Amino acid sequence: MEIVEYTYSQFRKDLENLPPLPSIDAILAIARGGLTFAHHLAEKLEIREVGCIGVSSYENRRKISSPSFSTPLILPSGKEKILIVDDISDTGETLSTLLNHLKNLYPTRKFFTFTLFVKPTTSFLPDFYLHTTPHWVSFFWEKK
Amino acid sequence: MEIVEYTYSQFRKDLENLPPLPSIDAILAIARGGLTFAHHLAEKLEIREVGCIGVSSYENRRKISSPSFSTPLILPSGKEKILIVDDISDTGETLSTLLNHLKNLYPTRKFFTFTLFVKPTTSFLPDFYLHTTPHWVSFFWEKK
Repeated sequence: MEIVEYTYSQFRKDLENLPPLPSIDAILAIARGGLTFAHHLAEKLEIREVGCIGVSSYENRRKISSPSFSTPLILPSGKEKILIVDDISDTGETLSTLLNHLKNLYPTRKFFTFTLFVKPTTSFLPDFYLHTTPHWVSFFWEKK
Repeated sequence: MEIVEYTYSQFRKDLENLPPLPSIDAILAIARGGLTFAHHLAEKLEIREVGCIGVSSYENRRKISSPSFSTPLILPSGKEKILIVDDISDTGETLSTLLNHLKNLYPTRKFFTFTLFVKPTTSFLPDFYLHTTPHWVSFFWEKK
């Protein structure tokens, strides 16, 4: 499979060229993939409230199962507009499962989704994303 | 106040020169400051389970209050050895308050603490840390 390198230097450029985003109260990072992006976004947008949720569907580049949540989905009170952040929407299953779950748990809150990458074959298109690629993306935080 | 710049390039060097760490099952990142470090550490150490907890005591470089936890402290079951990760131990109040709280809630689990920086005046010395400085540290993820 062809591999695209996503470097820190490209990431910095991306942070300088974010799309217009709605006003948000909190960021929910999908762990592990979304953590670094969520952290930098939170600094950039001056959002102090950042939570995270473990969702895993990959193991060594193979899709192993439906997304499962490793921590309870408890959102802080008073935070109505929440931006869910991940590195990539590949099949889209992680984001769509999480989003449905959150909407059921918190029907009055507003959720937005933002990823760095989407695959053209994703079944779920995030509200915001920066790049589209059919290739495997090697992110700088995965560097051994 | 004198400012020390902590760059991404220094961070990469630090990741190549980590101290020997005990075997751990999960990482708990202190948000926001510890998120990027926790993410990179988790990749490096191949730890899939990463949670985070919001703790804040700073607002615009001034210490404003005792640390308060913005999300419930629920640790995943079956994860006995947990590495708590933050960017800096300044007064040490965040880490020591969190650690005491966790030890009360989960008396049988083993907790370790790891920060990139400590201030020489900290009242709490993490189990692991990489740099000591009396200055204000400007981290690359805070870059506007």
